Amino acid sequence: MLAAIERIKSYIHRTPVLTCHTLDQIAGAKLFFKCENFQKMGAFKMRGAANAILQLTEGERERGVATHSSGNFAQAMALAAQMLGIPAFIVMPSNSPEVKKAAVRGYGGEIIECEPTLAAREATLQQVVERTGATFIHPFNDDHVIQGQGTAALELLQDVQDLDFIIAPVGGGGLLGGTALAAHHFSPKTKVWGGEPLGANDAWQSKQAGKIIPQTNPQTIADGLRTSLGDKTWPIIRDHVERVVLVEEDEIVASLRLLMERMKIVVEPSGAVALAAVLKEKAALAGKRVGVILSGGNVDLKVLAGLFG
Amino acid sequence: MLAAIERIKSYIHRTPVLTCHTLDQIAGAKLFFKCENFQKMGAFKMRGAANAILQLTEGERERGVATHSSGNFAQAMALAAQMLGIPAFIVMPSNSPEVKKAAVRGYGGEIIECEPTLAAREATLQQVVERTGATFIHPFNDDHVIQGQGTAALELLQDVQDLDFIIAPVGGGGLLGGTALAAHHFSPKTKVWGGEPLGANDAWQSKQAGKIIPQTNPQTIADGLRTSLGDKTWPIIRDHVERVVLVEEDEIVASLRLLMERMKIVVEPSGAVALAAVLKEKAALAGKRVGVILSGGNVDLKVLAGLFG
Repeated sequence: MLAAIERIKSYIHRTPVLTCHTLDQIAGAKLFFKCENFQKMGAFKMRGAANAILQLTEGERERGVATHSSGNFAQAMALAAQMLGIPAFIVMPSNSPEVKKAAVRGYGGEIIECEPTLAAREATLQQVVERTGATFIHPFNDDHVIQGQGTAALELLQDVQDLDFIIAPVGGGGLLGGTALAAHHFSPKTKVWGGEPLGANDAWQSKQAGKIIPQTNPQTIADGLRTSLGDKTWPIIRDHVERVVLVEEDEIVASLRLLMERMKIVVEPSGAVALAAVLKEKAALAGKRVGVILSGGNVDLKVLAGLFG
Repeated sequence: MLAAIERIKSYIHRTPVLTCHTLDQIAGAKLFFKCENFQKMGAFKMRGAANAILQLTEGERERGVATHSSGNFAQAMALAAQMLGIPAFIVMPSNSPEVKKAAVRGYGGEIIECEPTLAAREATLQQVVERTGATFIHPFNDDHVIQGQGTAALELLQDVQDLDFIIAPVGGGGLLGGTALAAHHFSPKTKVWGGEPLGANDAWQSKQAGKIIPQTNPQTIADGLRTSLGDKTWPIIRDHVERVVLVEEDEIVASLRLLMERMKIVVEPSGAVALAAVLKEKAALAGKRVGVILSGGNVDLKVLAGLFG
């Protein structure tokens, strides 16, 4: 993973670690916020996208990369490909918000629309790969992507000594899995927890059951965390994440409010889930040094207006 | 002013200077944002309050400090006094929002309410000073306060070489005056401009007339910029500020939006005025290195919701 940091460093920002006296007082712990909301294109996904693309051969790169995503990974893949001068083919459901399509196009990505079903998405992706020769890169269930996402936690461990905990949100598990690997290899005494919305609690359920329980019908404002774990992220989370903390929707919104009012930063709802988990588990974390990964900052101001109006 | 930096450094944050590739592209210039929205209590006012209090004698300090303000300076004075363990008496109009009174009380300030008129404010302040022996410190028309506010620009000049311009918002003129003194003494080739709302354009009018034109009936969302210049801030602005750029309300809101969407930071409307001025004067600033002072981040989320809903 040290190699990944070197590999991607000219394609990403080394994001700052912020602290906030007021939030420390509220949490009763010493918090260190890894601000991936300040990352290029606004989220940690740039790390995994860059790391995966950079491990392709020259010939593979020339034919480009393909993925399916309607969220931050679509933009990350498009931007990373643009920076490397190669094509990016992004399969998106036809009902994706226009603002998200525009963002992908703005980074030079070519959008291929499909019906909003899993079957149509996979069939369309397969067609694109066959037609273009592009390499498919999964948004999270990919070792190089997981490794890239883990560089956020590794930088945090490099910048802050003696963390007792690192808490990251969990959706597909790329960020949380990468975080867990970073701690496991570079700071084994640092415990890693996931923060997950109660309304999309497949990681929590999977930990309880000891096997992947797929997410069905997720209900949460944290739109980055609605996906299920994958077969590459699950074993890492099973083995190296101590626990998954569930948080309610109003707790996510309260954390968003604290981040905006007290730290003066804009974070997307998924990004506020890790802080919500910290506050939920104040008793267990009292007096500890806790790394909190703020995963991204791409939120429509209309959504914020709806929450705080 | 170097002495002021030393004097106040344990009472304030040395705030970061952020850059943003996207905003550079939009502006056509290289922008360096001095983030006083990350300052203690959320605005540059901490600098002036701390610098003024720290120049009192021990005997004066014991009797405390007094000011009149319904905004950030009230909170700054209360917090700086609290950090030094001395009383702060804050005269506030009885119609001040409860949230602002609560903030002052939260920092240990004692609020003395008065009728919302200039005469009542001055009479009440006089009574408080006579009763308590506290030293009156004006929110901006005070040499030590001006010098303290100027430390933000001085830090910026220390951190970023060869700035062609620094742009700061102007209300009473403490921040802009201090900024102009910092550039005048430490980087004379750096030009200083003010940004001012069209609906509260007393500094612009004063520059045109060559004498102080008081603000009457200000109309702007930038609530920190509704005050008139004072007789200590005006001569500095007259002599050392090259020009005042007027911006319209929708330009202030557009800059707020850019700061939130692109830089992922929360800034109060007054703080966005300097960026609005940069964008208004793109042609004149093309290719230049421009310092932009983001003066504070204390904004009610309901206000933001109203703007972006």
